[in-house]
Amino acid sequence: MESLEIEDFTIQAMPDVSPAKWHLGHTTWFFDEFVLAPFTRFEPFLRGSSHIFNSYYESVGNRVARVARGHLSRPTVREILSYRDRVTAAVIKLLEMPLGTNSQSILERVEIGIHHEQQHQELLYTDIKYNLFQNLDFPAYGATPFPKGEGTKLEWQKVNGGLIEIGARSGFAYDNERPLHRVFLEDFFLADRLVTNAEFLAFMEDGGYSKFQYWLSDGFELVRQHNWTAPLYWVKQKGEWFEYTLGGLLPIDPVRPVTHVSFHEAYAYAAWSDTRLPTEFEWEYAATLAGADRNFLESNLLHPAPARGDGLRQMFGDVWEWTSSAYLPYPGFQPLAGALGEYNGKFMNDQRVLRGGSCVTSRSHFRPSYRNFFQGDKRWQFTGIRLAR
Amino acid sequence: MESLEIEDFTIQAMPDVSPAKWHLGHTTWFFDEFVLAPFTRFEPFLRGSSHIFNSYYESVGNRVARVARGHLSRPTVREILSYRDRVTAAVIKLLEMPLGTNSQSILERVEIGIHHEQQHQELLYTDIKYNLFQNLDFPAYGATPFPKGEGTKLEWQKVNGGLIEIGARSGFAYDNERPLHRVFLEDFFLADRLVTNAEFLAFMEDGGYSKFQYWLSDGFELVRQHNWTAPLYWVKQKGEWFEYTLGGLLPIDPVRPVTHVSFHEAYAYAAWSDTRLPTEFEWEYAATLAGADRNFLESNLLHPAPARGDGLRQMFGDVWEWTSSAYLPYPGFQPLAGALGEYNGKFMNDQRVLRGGSCVTSRSHFRPSYRNFFQGDKRWQFTGIRLAR
Amino acid sequence: MESLEIEDFTIQAMPDVSPAKWHLGHTTWFFDEFVLAPFTRFEPFLRGSSHIFNSYYESVGNRVARVARGHLSRPTVREILSYRDRVTAAVIKLLEMPLGTNSQSILERVEIGIHHEQQHQELLYTDIKYNLFQNLDFPAYGATPFPKGEGTKLEWQKVNGGLIEIGARSGFAYDNERPLHRVFLEDFFLADRLVTNAEFLAFMEDGGYSKFQYWLSDGFELVRQHNWTAPLYWVKQKGEWFEYTLGGLLPIDPVRPVTHVSFHEAYAYAAWSDTRLPTEFEWEYAATLAGADRNFLESNLLHPAPARGDGLRQMFGDVWEWTSSAYLPYPGFQPLAGALGEYNGKFMNDQRVLRGGSCVTSRSHFRPSYRNFFQGDKRWQFTGIRLAR
Amino acid sequence: MESLEIEDFTIQAMPDVSPAKWHLGHTTWFFDEFVLAPFTRFEPFLRGSSHIFNSYYESVGNRVARVARGHLSRPTVREILSYRDRVTAAVIKLLEMPLGTNSQSILERVEIGIHHEQQHQELLYTDIKYNLFQNLDFPAYGATPFPKGEGTKLEWQKVNGGLIEIGARSGFAYDNERPLHRVFLEDFFLADRLVTNAEFLAFMEDGGYSKFQYWLSDGFELVRQHNWTAPLYWVKQKGEWFEYTLGGLLPIDPVRPVTHVSFHEAYAYAAWSDTRLPTEFEWEYAATLAGADRNFLESNLLHPAPARGDGLRQMFGDVWEWTSSAYLPYPGFQPLAGALGEYNGKFMNDQRVLRGGSCVTSRSHFRPSYRNFFQGDKRWQFTGIRLAR
Repeated sequence: MESLEIEDFTIQAMPDVSPAKWHLGHTTWFFDEFVLAPFTRFEPFLRGSSHIFNSYYESVGNRVARVARGHLSRPTVREILSYRDRVTAAVIKLLEMPLGTNSQSILERVEIGIHHEQQHQELLYTDIKYNLFQNLDFPAYGATPFPKGEGTKLEWQKVNGGLIEIGARSGFAYDNERPLHRVFLEDFFLADRLVTNAEFLAFMEDGGYSKFQYWLSDGFELVRQHNWTAPLYWVKQKGEWFEYTLGGLLPIDPVRPVTHVSFHEAYAYAAWSDTRLPTEFEWEYAATLAGADRNFLESNLLHPAPARGDGLRQMFGDVWEWTSSAYLPYPGFQPLAGALGEYNGKFMNDQRVLRGGSCVTSRSHFRPSYRNFFQGDKRWQFTGIRLAR
Repeated sequence: MESLEIEDFTIQAMPDVSPAKWHLGHTTWFFDEFVLAPFTRFEPFLRGSSHIFNSYYESVGNRVARVARGHLSRPTVREILSYRDRVTAAVIKLLEMPLGTNSQSILERVEIGIHHEQQHQELLYTDIKYNLFQNLDFPAYGATPFPKGEGTKLEWQKVNGGLIEIGARSGFAYDNERPLHRVFLEDFFLADRLVTNAEFLAFMEDGGYSKFQYWLSDGFELVRQHNWTAPLYWVKQKGEWFEYTLGGLLPIDPVRPVTHVSFHEAYAYAAWSDTRLPTEFEWEYAATLAGADRNFLESNLLHPAPARGDGLRQMFGDVWEWTSSAYLPYPGFQPLAGALGEYNGKFMNDQRVLRGGSCVTSRSHFRPSYRNFFQGDKRWQFTGIRLAR
Repeated sequence: MESLEIEDFTIQAMPDVSPAKWHLGHTTWFFDEFVLAPFTRFEPFLRGSSHIFNSYYESVGNRVARVARGHLSRPTVREILSYRDRVTAAVIKLLEMPLGTNSQSILERVEIGIHHEQQHQELLYTDIKYNLFQNLDFPAYGATPFPKGEGTKLEWQKVNGGLIEIGARSGFAYDNERPLHRVFLEDFFLADRLVTNAEFLAFMEDGGYSKFQYWLSDGFELVRQHNWTAPLYWVKQKGEWFEYTLGGLLPIDPVRPVTHVSFHEAYAYAAWSDTRLPTEFEWEYAATLAGADRNFLESNLLHPAPARGDGLRQMFGDVWEWTSSAYLPYPGFQPLAGALGEYNGKFMNDQRVLRGGSCVTSRSHFRPSYRNFFQGDKRWQFTGIRLAR
Repeated sequence: MESLEIEDFTIQAMPDVSPAKWHLGHTTWFFDEFVLAPFTRFEPFLRGSSHIFNSYYESVGNRVARVARGHLSRPTVREILSYRDRVTAAVIKLLEMPLGTNSQSILERVEIGIHHEQQHQELLYTDIKYNLFQNLDFPAYGATPFPKGEGTKLEWQKVNGGLIEIGARSGFAYDNERPLHRVFLEDFFLADRLVTNAEFLAFMEDGGYSKFQYWLSDGFELVRQHNWTAPLYWVKQKGEWFEYTLGGLLPIDPVRPVTHVSFHEAYAYAAWSDTRLPTEFEWEYAATLAGADRNFLESNLLHPAPARGDGLRQMFGDVWEWTSSAYLPYPGFQPLAGALGEYNGKFMNDQRVLRGGSCVTSRSHFRPSYRNFFQGDKRWQFTGIRLAR
C-alpha cells in the first residue's frame, strides 16, 4: 500500500465500501474481541475499538453506523497501525504460551480470524479501487502490467448430471459451506471461459441496456434508476471506452473478461445471448474439471486476465462468477455458536451466490466449495459472467 | 361486494394495493388486450384503457405509475362495470363463432385470462381489507361467522426423502410450475397444522420482536424501521389484542392460525421455536399426504379457520405458507412467448415462494404445484406459518 | 359540483391537495369543534370527526396524517353531507336562541368559521382541478365560457412613496393583517396588468427555464429536480401548447394572464425581463389606485381573464400575485387566543406573501389587506405575476 | 491548525460542512479563478482545480457535488498547500507589477478574495468542530482557556424608533448590504445581553422542546424529525450536561451564552419567555449603542464568553444572533456583475438573517451592517439568541 496517501485511507465514497483504515482496524479488532478478550487478562488496546470497529455483531453491542465510517478521522492511520502491532504481538504471545484446555477454541478462532482477514484483504482492494476512482485524475494504485493476450473462441463443455455431493468435506470452511449434502443435477453445458469485454460490448451496442425483454423486472428498474449504460469503471473519452483499473485508466482490452457487472447485467447478457447463468451446484460440480489457468492476488495483476490453456478455464481467480442461485442455507445448516454465528447465516436473504474467487483473492483463501454472496445490484466487486445452457 | 361504497372502490392506501375499481378494469383489459385485440376487428371499448389498466407489461407500452392508480377518479366504477359488460359480451360472441385456425390460441388465452382473473379476485379481498382498515371505525366487509373452534396439539409428521418429482404434470398451470423435474430431498418432519395466534403471542410476549438472534439481518432492520411489534391488523385496545378481519374487528382467537405475517416474522418465529420453515419442494411433496381440511373462498369465512380432522391439516386454503425457498426458475424453465411471457419469469428475483392457497383463493384456482411469490417484507396477503425440522 | 362523480370527491393526487369530501367535512368540523362543542350541550355528530377532519390544530389532538386523507373511504360523501346538514342546523338553532354572555364569542367564531369556509371553497376549486387533471381525458368541471379578449400593452404606473400605513383598519380581518402599522416606501412603478401567456411563452422560448442567471439558487434546483419547462397544467400536443382549465383542455390564449406558476418562475420571469416583483407593501399601497376590473368566483369564469379598462387592472381577482415579501408577522402581531391562534402565526416561516385574490376567491371574502401565503415552490393555486421596478 | 491530523482535513461528516482541505483549496481557487485567470497569462496551478474547488458558481461550470467533497482523497493536503503557495506567490507578483488599466478591477477582486477567505476561515472552525465531534473521544482542537465568569441580570435597553437608515455607507461591504435605504421602526426594547446556558436549560426543563405552542409549525416538525432535546454539541453523561467546544468536552457553564441553536429553537425560546427576536433593522440600529464587550477570533477563546461591562453587551462577536428577518434584497439591490454576482443574491430565499459576528469571526472582517444568513434549521454555526420586545 505504499502508493497510498493517508487521505486515501480515510475516505468512504459510498456506504458499501469502508475506509482502508477501518478495514485495518476491524480485522485487528476481530482478534482483540474474539481471541484476546475471552482468553487473556484483557485490557483494551484502543479506547472505543469495539464501538468503532464492530461491523455488524449485534451480540457485541452498539457500533458506528456503516454510513458513518468515513466520518471518523480518529483513530488515525498511525494509531491504527500501532493498535495492530500491539494486538498482533499479544496474539503471538498467547500462542507461544501453553494453551491448556482452551487450546482448540483458541486455535479455531485464530484460524477464522486469519480467514476473516483474507476476506478483508480482498475488500481492501475493491474498496480502495472505488475510493480512488472518485478522483478526477484516476490515480493508479499500482499493479504488474500484463502482456496483451490473445482471444480464444468460447467452447461449451458438457457436464453429465446425476445425484452429486455439494459442500465442504474437510479442512477449514465457513459454516455456510456445510453440511455436505446431495443434490440432483440434470446434464448441462458450461462455457469454457468467461464473457469478454468484446462480447459484452456487442450486447451494449445492440441496445442491451435499453431492451426490457432481457432483464428481470428489478434489474430493468435499476438500469432506469441509475442510468446504467456500461459496467462500473467504464469511462468514455472522446468516443472511446476506457476502463479504470488498479493500474490506472486503460483502453478496453477486448479479450479480457468483463468485470464489475451486477448480477442483473450478467442475467441480461445471458438472456440476450440465449443462454443462462449456472447454478452454484452446477458450478461446484464442474469445478472438478477446471484447468490450470488461475489468476489470484499473488499474480499482482489485480485485474482479470485473458483465458489461457485448455479445459474449463478461468474457473479459479480472475472474477467472482455470478450464479443464478439464491444465497440460502444448505439442508441441516448450523451457524457457529455465539457472536461468530452472525458471520454468515443472518445474511441469507435476497442475495446471489458467486463462485470461483477473483484476481484479488488470496490463493490460500480459496476453495471450490467457497460461497461468496452479494445483493444482485452490487458492482464494485470483481464480478463477471460465465454462461451455461 | 354489495357492502362496499363507491368510495371504497376508489382508494389506494399504499402502493402494494390497487383500488378495487382498478382490479375490475385490469382483469377486463386483460381479455381486451390479449384476446379481443389480436383476434377480432378491434375497437377499444374504453378510451385509454391500455394506459390505465396495463399493470406491468412493457411490451404493451406506457402505463399509469403503480403508485398513481389511486389518483384516478375516472373512469368511474359505473363506467368500468359497463366496460366489463361490453368486453365480456364480445368475448362470448367470439367464442360462439367458429374459431378456425386460431382456435387453440384463443382458448389458451381465454383460459389464462380466467386464471388471471381468479388471482385478482383474491387480490381484491386482500386489497379491500387493507383499504377498509384505514378507516377509524374498522368497517366490516361481511363474512360468514364461524363457530369457535377447539385447539389441537401440534404433531410432527415424518416424510421420507429421496429423488422426487416437482412441478405441474397435466392440466392448466402457469409457466413457472414447469417443467416437471427431479429434486433430491432428505427425510424431514412437517408440522401437522399451522402456527396459531396463541403460539405467536407467546413469541411476542417472550420479546421475540426485539431479540436480534432470531432474525435475518434484513428482517431485524425491517422491525426497527417499521416498529413492528405484532402481525399486521393486530390492534391493541385497553390492553387487549384484537384482529381486523373482513368480518370486522374481533378479539384474537387463540386457536386460529396467525396470519398477515411477513416472511421475516415467519422465519423469526421458526428460529425462536428451534425449528425452521419448509422448502417449497418439501411442501409440494408432503402435499400428497394432505388431509381433507380445506378452507377456500367458497366457505366465505374470509379468514383462516382452526385445524380440524387428521393427517396434515390446513395444507390447502386458510393461509399462504411461507417457504424458505427463493422464487427461482425450475431447470429448463421457458416463459410463454410474447407479452404473456412477462407474467411470471421477470419477477424471479428476491422473492420467496408461498404454497397452499388461502381462505380467499378460489378452490378451482388452486393446485398443489401452484407457486405464489412475494417479497419477504409483505404482510397484507393472508400469509402464515407452517414449521418443519 | 353537479358535474363531479363520487369518485372525484375521494381522490388526493398529491399531499398538498385534499379530497373534496375532506374539505366538506373539515369546514363542517370547524363549526362543530369551535362553535358547537364549547357553547352547546355537545354530542358529536360524527364519530371520529375530530380525528379525521382536524387539519393542523395541535391543541385539538391527534389527527390523520395529511398524506393519508385520500386513504379514507369512510365517512362517505353522503355521510359527510348529512353531517354537514346536522351541524348547520345546530349552528342555526344556537344562533336563534338568546346567546347571553357568550354572545360576542359565538358571533366572532361563527364569523371566522364563515371566512374559513370561504377559504376552503377556494381550495376546493384548486384541489378539484388538480385531481381531475390526473385523468387521461382531462375532464371539465364546467365554467362559463368567455369571449376571446383583446391584448393590451403593458403600461407602468408610477406610485409615490413615503411613510404609509399597512394593515387592516376595521371590519373582519385575520390576525395576520394586524396591527395597522407604518412602513416607509421609496417611489416605484407597478405594471398596470398581469403578465400574459404570450409574454411568458417568450420567456420559455428564450430558454428561460434553463438559464441559471435568472433564478434563485433554490428555484433553479427545483427546475432541475422536477424538469419544469412550462407552468403547471400546460400540455403540449402535436407541437402546440394547451392549458388545462376547469372548462377543459383549451389552446393557450395569448392575452390571458399566465397562471399556475411558482414564486420561483415569477421571480425568474421578472429577472429575465429586467424588472422585479413588488413587495406586499407596495402592492397594498398601490391597491388604492386599482381600477374596476375584477374577476372573482362570482363571474364563474374559473380562470383569469384578459385585462380590461383603465388604471391598475386585474388587481383584485384573476390570480394571486406573488410578492417578493416573506410571510412574517407585522410589528406587534398578536395571534388569537387558544386553538384558533394556530390559524396563521405558526406558518410564518419560509413562505411568500401573495396578494389580490383570484378567479376562485369569493368577492365578499376579499379585502385589500388580505395576506395569502404559500411556499415558493407551489403551483397548484391560481398564482400569477405582476411586475414592478 | 497544528493540532490537526491529516485525516482531520479530509473528513466531511455532513453535507453542510466541507473538509478542511477543501476550504484551503477553495479559497485559493477563488484567487486563481477570479484574479489570476482573467489578468495574467494563466496556466492552471492544479489540474482540475476548478472542477474540485468551485463551490456553486454556475457561470464557471461543472463541479463536484457538495455531498461528495469528502469523497475525494486527492489532491492531498500537501498538494493543496503547495497549490496555495504557488497561487499566493503569483498574486503577490501580479500586485507588485504595474497594474495599468485593470488596476481597480484587480484590487477590488483581491479585496473581495480576502474577505471571502475570512469567511471561510470562520467556516473552517465551525466545520472542523463538527467533524472532530464525530470521534468518540471528543478530541480538542485547542483554545485559550477562560476564567469562569460571573452571571449578570438581563436588563432591557429601550431604543427609540423613527425613520432610520440601514445599510453600508462606505468602505468594503458585500453587495447585499447595499444600497443604504430608509426604514421606519417603532420604539422597542432590546436585551442587554445574550441568553445564557442556564436560561436555556430552564426552557428545556420546562418541557420547551415538547410544547408545540412555542414553535413555528416547521420548527416543531424539525424537533420531531430529529428528536432535538438540547442544542447541538450538548452531551449528557451520567445525568450531567456537557458541551463540546474546540477546547474539548466541558461541563455546561451556566453564565456563558447558549450557542449552536437553530433559528427555530431561538424562536421557541423567545415565545416561551414571552418576548420575541429582533428584526435585522432593529439590531443594526441598536448596534450604534453597543458597548466595548467583544469576543472575536483574535481572543482565541473559540467560544462565546459571559457578558461583561455596561450598555448593550456581546453585540459584536461571541455568537451570530438570529433575527426574525428573512434574508431579502434591500430596495434597489444590485448584484455584482459576472460570476461574482452569484455570491449573495441567488441565496435570498427561505433563509434568516443573523447579525453581530461570532467568536470565530475575524475582527477586521466584521462591520455592523454585515448580514449573515442561514436556513432556520442550521445549528453548526456559532449561533445564539438575543431577545427583543
